[in-house]
Amino acid sequence: MRAVDIIIKKRDKGELTKEEIEFFINGFTSGDIPSYQAAAWAMAVALNGMTPRETTDLTLTMAQSGEILDLSQVGNFVVDKHSTGGVGDKTTLVVAPMVAACCLPVGKMSGRGLGFSGGTLDKMESIPGFRTDLTRDEFIDQIRSIGLVLTGQTADLAPADGKLYSLRDVTGTVESIPLIASSIMSKKIASGTKAIVLDVKIGSGAFIKNMENARELSSLMVEIARLAGAKAVAILSDMNQPLGSAVGNALELEEAINTLHGEGPTDFLDHCLMIAGQMLTLGGVTPDAESGKKYAKKTIQDGSAWGKFRKLVIAQSGDVSYIDEPARLPSANIIETVNSPEFGYISEINALTVGKTAVTLGAGRSRKGDSIDHAVGIVLHHKVGNWVEVGDPLFSLHAQDRGTFEIAKEKLLNAYGFSPEPVEPLPLFYGVIE
Amino acid sequence: MRAVDIIIKKRDKGELTKEEIEFFINGFTSGDIPSYQAAAWAMAVALNGMTPRETTDLTLTMAQSGEILDLSQVGNFVVDKHSTGGVGDKTTLVVAPMVAACCLPVGKMSGRGLGFSGGTLDKMESIPGFRTDLTRDEFIDQIRSIGLVLTGQTADLAPADGKLYSLRDVTGTVESIPLIASSIMSKKIASGTKAIVLDVKIGSGAFIKNMENARELSSLMVEIARLAGAKAVAILSDMNQPLGSAVGNALELEEAINTLHGEGPTDFLDHCLMIAGQMLTLGGVTPDAESGKKYAKKTIQDGSAWGKFRKLVIAQSGDVSYIDEPARLPSANIIETVNSPEFGYISEINALTVGKTAVTLGAGRSRKGDSIDHAVGIVLHHKVGNWVEVGDPLFSLHAQDRGTFEIAKEKLLNAYGFSPEPVEPLPLFYGVIE
Repeated sequence: MRAVDIIIKKRDKGELTKEEIEFFINGFTSGDIPSYQAAAWAMAVALNGMTPRETTDLTLTMAQSGEILDLSQVGNFVVDKHSTGGVGDKTTLVVAPMVAACCLPVGKMSGRGLGFSGGTLDKMESIPGFRTDLTRDEFIDQIRSIGLVLTGQTADLAPADGKLYSLRDVTGTVESIPLIASSIMSKKIASGTKAIVLDVKIGSGAFIKNMENARELSSLMVEIARLAGAKAVAILSDMNQPLGSAVGNALELEEAINTLHGEGPTDFLDHCLMIAGQMLTLGGVTPDAESGKKYAKKTIQDGSAWGKFRKLVIAQSGDVSYIDEPARLPSANIIETVNSPEFGYISEINALTVGKTAVTLGAGRSRKGDSIDHAVGIVLHHKVGNWVEVGDPLFSLHAQDRGTFEIAKEKLLNAYGFSPEPVEPLPLFYGVIE
Repeated sequence: MRAVDIIIKKRDKGELTKEEIEFFINGFTSGDIPSYQAAAWAMAVALNGMTPRETTDLTLTMAQSGEILDLSQVGNFVVDKHSTGGVGDKTTLVVAPMVAACCLPVGKMSGRGLGFSGGTLDKMESIPGFRTDLTRDEFIDQIRSIGLVLTGQTADLAPADGKLYSLRDVTGTVESIPLIASSIMSKKIASGTKAIVLDVKIGSGAFIKNMENARELSSLMVEIARLAGAKAVAILSDMNQPLGSAVGNALELEEAINTLHGEGPTDFLDHCLMIAGQMLTLGGVTPDAESGKKYAKKTIQDGSAWGKFRKLVIAQSGDVSYIDEPARLPSANIIETVNSPEFGYISEINALTVGKTAVTLGAGRSRKGDSIDHAVGIVLHHKVGNWVEVGDPLFSLHAQDRGTFEIAKEKLLNAYGFSPEPVEPLPLFYGVIE
């Protein structure tokens, strides 16, 4: 078998066999196949696509390129969730303790990647002392002891995916549905989970802008899970405006804490209940998503979700006093509210612009390895469809200096659209694919 | 400007600007842009194509990546020819001395590449002592002194093309019409020629199998020449059966010598006259191709083409006694004729199979740097359309050992098709694009 023949076969729209995919990916991972051949192959895949069967073989080959965690010793099911990423997406911080409070273990390994306002790990690291570098044994022990873990990936989880992703990032081959699906699913399969809820975001603030691509990616990931012997369900959710009100690491953590106390924004709570309901159903705890949602809601009302979250923070060495008194969390030098320059129904709060503003403030990374500022961010005071008068509070900015504040203010005002006619609120969800 | 953005633009079917092409190719040549980015870009080009304008910019950028020879000091016009490659194609060996004998200087630099029976340089190197490594000054001096040179490329001619071609070879991106056209034309432009006849082969033994691709490549190369301030004409010629009778280095040299003496195969002579006629017309020596052909034919009849060929061999240090007595040329251990196992009209002599048989015998290279055997090869005794009886001589094999002979014989018999019904001879040409 020669690497160049496999590239040519894909260039000519052929369907690669399992053996060809294994030869190519294992050769690339070991260094026997040079990166320029992998780059040409990735571009051929990006342009000519892959069948679900090929994508599944790619996923499994990448998953098997390193250790695959065996969680069968821990319990019947360990559920996981994955979001394709959006602005203000702090869902895991609420959903994971809710589901764990329903006695369904949640073991989640997050990547750090790029993002407008950090990832789950960055948000949790707003809590002084919180560890995200658990070992494999600590991961398994903690699932067993408190049924809940949020940590970073162990280094040897799907190393082929890590290597291929780095190459895709610099060769214009990120935007490929089969490559995206296999990248996400290889890490999930390697982390040992057998049941996963995929939160696929669509809209201006998501990397998927249209419904067709979102449906294709979702169906593909659900199919890969099935072929790999796991269960998955994908929720298509809106990312045209930010989720909830807060964007920024400590600000989002605080919003999650409020939500766990039953005092969060309605849209965000509804989103979390939907994801939790699906996780509980997939994990066999409830017969359907509707009863799953009710069960999840009960964990907010009776304080059990909050109790689980506290246990998580303590188990991972976080200083629990910071979540008990969120006022102690990192705080920015300048916290000022910006009022609306116009009146009307809000017709747009462009999530991409909000995300870029958060990066300007220092809340996210524009390049790998950039440090982030946990204190800074944005709080939005309205959602699309709301009526505002001139001078009504529109958003608050948490910035470290005046110059950045002014740039961010200018930028963020451009995210807004106003309409004299009533505007329908944006839907939270566009469908469920299972 | 970032390399990845240029890759993405081409991936998304965008038209690259001159500046973008220069940035990318110059960056790749200097090493600033790594080969994995160039590989992804090349695959995007192979799959999404380039416009003639982009292809011309690519050609000129690659030509300008090294020295561009200035031949204006040598004469008004130095003509060149280029064949896209076929089996039994020894055209240059006859055409170049004919044209030079008409007082139109021919300066040809050949690449060595892969090929079923070596290239022009390999054929000439059947003559002991013949040098193909002339320096730039020797090249120019020899055009001035005898009006004829056949040599290898000087190292710094279009180095960007050399680097890109090596990468394409291992990344499945050879088969791309814009990349093929720019590769051929960049070297031609760098070698200083202002008038070039392109011999574009179509058929089983050519890398272009269909007329549509041949026409596209031809038009593109003629257009590039025009945009680059040169003149070009493309001849579409048949490569379904080998050209002439001989395939193999010394055997083809001998056939060329016979042809220069007026004793070559008719199809091969007609092919040479066509190419020479076009070169003479393009160089302004004759008003049209028909009178060019007549003039070229005269150089065979009056011995002036042969005289020019002898001067070429002497000028490049070849031992002229070997061409005066071709029996002295390298000769194989086994020379045996294989008779026809069938009777009928010959309906096919598959050029690809003939070419592969020549490689089996050792006449060509299957990998870069392979050595070749000048002595071995094939002589075909019939063309498509001929009637043969069982037992009539079909072909002769020149092999070094019995085992190889038997394998080659078996292989080559499979190249033939026979028909009880009369079969039309194959045409020599399919058209001229200017």
